[in-house]
Amino acid sequence: MKTTRLSSGISIRRTIAEGTEQQVQAVKEIIAAVRGEGDAALLRFTEKWDGAKLARLRVSPEEISEAVKRFDPQLLKDLAEAADNIRSYHESQKQEGYKLENQDGSYVAQRVTAIESAGLYVPGGTAAYPSSVLMNVIPAQVAGVGRIVLISPPGKDGTLSDGVLAAAHILGIEEVYKSGGAQAIAALAYGTESIAPVDKITGPGNIFVALAKREVNGDVAIDMIAGPSEIAIIADDTAYPDEVAADLLSQAEHDPMASAVLLTVSERLAEAVSREVQKQAAALPRHSIAEQAIEDHGMIYIGESLDQVIDAANELAPEHLEIMTEDAEGVAEKICHAGAIFIGRFSSEPVGDYFAGTNHVLPTNSTARFSSALSVYDFLKRTSIIRYSEKTWQQNKDKIARLARLEGLEGHARAVESRSWKKETHS
Amino acid sequence: MKTTRLSSGISIRRTIAEGTEQQVQAVKEIIAAVRGEGDAALLRFTEKWDGAKLARLRVSPEEISEAVKRFDPQLLKDLAEAADNIRSYHESQKQEGYKLENQDGSYVAQRVTAIESAGLYVPGGTAAYPSSVLMNVIPAQVAGVGRIVLISPPGKDGTLSDGVLAAAHILGIEEVYKSGGAQAIAALAYGTESIAPVDKITGPGNIFVALAKREVNGDVAIDMIAGPSEIAIIADDTAYPDEVAADLLSQAEHDPMASAVLLTVSERLAEAVSREVQKQAAALPRHSIAEQAIEDHGMIYIGESLDQVIDAANELAPEHLEIMTEDAEGVAEKICHAGAIFIGRFSSEPVGDYFAGTNHVLPTNSTARFSSALSVYDFLKRTSIIRYSEKTWQQNKDKIARLARLEGLEGHARAVESRSWKKETHS
Repeated sequence: MKTTRLSSGISIRRTIAEGTEQQVQAVKEIIAAVRGEGDAALLRFTEKWDGAKLARLRVSPEEISEAVKRFDPQLLKDLAEAADNIRSYHESQKQEGYKLENQDGSYVAQRVTAIESAGLYVPGGTAAYPSSVLMNVIPAQVAGVGRIVLISPPGKDGTLSDGVLAAAHILGIEEVYKSGGAQAIAALAYGTESIAPVDKITGPGNIFVALAKREVNGDVAIDMIAGPSEIAIIADDTAYPDEVAADLLSQAEHDPMASAVLLTVSERLAEAVSREVQKQAAALPRHSIAEQAIEDHGMIYIGESLDQVIDAANELAPEHLEIMTEDAEGVAEKICHAGAIFIGRFSSEPVGDYFAGTNHVLPTNSTARFSSALSVYDFLKRTSIIRYSEKTWQQNKDKIARLARLEGLEGHARAVESRSWKKETHS
Repeated sequence: MKTTRLSSGISIRRTIAEGTEQQVQAVKEIIAAVRGEGDAALLRFTEKWDGAKLARLRVSPEEISEAVKRFDPQLLKDLAEAADNIRSYHESQKQEGYKLENQDGSYVAQRVTAIESAGLYVPGGTAAYPSSVLMNVIPAQVAGVGRIVLISPPGKDGTLSDGVLAAAHILGIEEVYKSGGAQAIAALAYGTESIAPVDKITGPGNIFVALAKREVNGDVAIDMIAGPSEIAIIADDTAYPDEVAADLLSQAEHDPMASAVLLTVSERLAEAVSREVQKQAAALPRHSIAEQAIEDHGMIYIGESLDQVIDAANELAPEHLEIMTEDAEGVAEKICHAGAIFIGRFSSEPVGDYFAGTNHVLPTNSTARFSSALSVYDFLKRTSIIRYSEKTWQQNKDKIARLARLEGLEGHARAVESRSWKKETHS
């Protein structure tokens, strides 16, 4: 791995470009086609890009039950246990409304309700991730979203992966469609004959999915636009180089654009990890992806002090941050910006990817400075409620009218004052 | 006002177009200029578009204290009281983290922290709104944002409005800059010699501000892209037509694109409100704006039943919804989608715009289906924390490795398993 010394001048913040003009244009055309032609466009694009000629877009109940029957019962149990952990963690994110009332019965309040419908995009092909189904659906279910839909590109044989359908089954999701790419996002956003539109679209995808989500944003809500996966590890001489290397590679194997960074004060560790990464990468089934990611986006930063290393981690604001140092909890307390923090050597990052219960949909590209993991909050909305009594209005109407006139909005002032024009009042 | 009957076929959802290709291109060029040239570009654009030749971008402490001295003491008191109400309402939005721990000391946790810095754009000219300063700054302050910056275009004389500076003073904000439009957004996002960049940009603005916020989104966070203001009123024969009309006009006077909608079952009320709107509009200082808005975006919908009227309001998902009916609370309970609900005749919408304490930055364009008022939550971020003990790891490592291999991610499985390679362990 490349190694460099931290110095106060260099920026290690990460930014990834976002698609070419041609890709943006292609996505706009796909969305227009789906809005204009509906199902016909979806079926045509699915034949063209996924190689599958579908009779219908919706997955039948039989397809789901057969996939579940075929699926390894041990894995079904593992997925169900992971789902339980994820549900437990997210239950604590439920929000309640509140009401501030005065003696007259005047009040201001915040009402919290779930959005009505959500659509989850699930990538297909080599990246068909049942864990993504759990991570996106469960927060929506805990929030109380009434209608939750999955959409995923089929294989050439016109089927979805058993794992994805098994995960849907475990969660009780029955509305599943076969379609991928920008066309799937367009269908969720605007609807077709077969697919009713949703209010929010979440889930990962390739550049076309990301660009399509950006296009439809505003007409529907979207989750974050996730970039390639990232791991940063703060480690010292108490860490085992083979474990550090294995964890760096666990992200590097995702994507040639994935980033894997070690931050340390130990030159000895840096050298040992570098050797281990090379050795272990070569032995991975996805070694060419991992090696490319390490070559292009892997880096070992050596700092002069632990504080300098911590500052660099905060500037990087990585999606995943592991801490394997003597006082890992102490270091974690000084981390201001990270999507998720993994403390100690038994908290390897895949623990969070699959099982511990926290969400694996996390902010990338240094956006942990201002963004957070996907959560129940993402599927809730809040309505403000104001009720003024006659007395409270009487006490405050002149102030409100003055503030409106200060801003040149006479109509606002008159609206508040208009209530004085009558003798008899009922509220 | 135009009047039409509700029927099951028609959609009353609102969508507003978002700038021309030329405007988008102009905004991209402005942002590039600010990124390349910094202060020089800001000063040049300010001279060009605001007609002000500035010596420095930052407002001096003397400018603020002189503005406060000139400002009407009664209005200063009104603003301070509004600020207190807004602070009280938003205090209830503070979020705490949580930690779920097992007997081994393994835990998953959510840590909640404030973003480090936020920049508020304050429109200038005729729309210099001190109330916007309160509504944007206070949630950030309650969240605990460390650095809060205001930026606003100066008048031709190179000054900001006394009201905006007075509002900043009341809130203790000292970092205020003179710059407007897309160039101000670029400065907040990427920084210049005089202006350090921020992590999140909020605040309303014209189309160039909105497009610039869309461009920089991702590099920094932004609040919603707010469209023109909207009011919908559900009213029956217990409502006073003059009050309904005054409230419709209070939004119509904002902007020729503002929308004002009455939903009722009463033809008598519809006719009376229509007459009142015409009469009152003519008497407003901003009558040409209000009349244009009523002409283009005003509508009275007459339903056959209150339930039909409520369904229409939910489909519209208006920014502001007033309810002036016999059982206003009962109607409010059936509203699923609205930015803010104003119950009863003493809760005229300007009560919420200025004073009651709820936030006046609200979702427009039917996005209340999935969006919410600006809030403390918008200035907080959450970090997930995972700490597994050796025992918890031991109990679950095989499950995690199986789930990773199900997804074809051998490197993930090996990372978790790598911890078994050693005899002695320390966590």
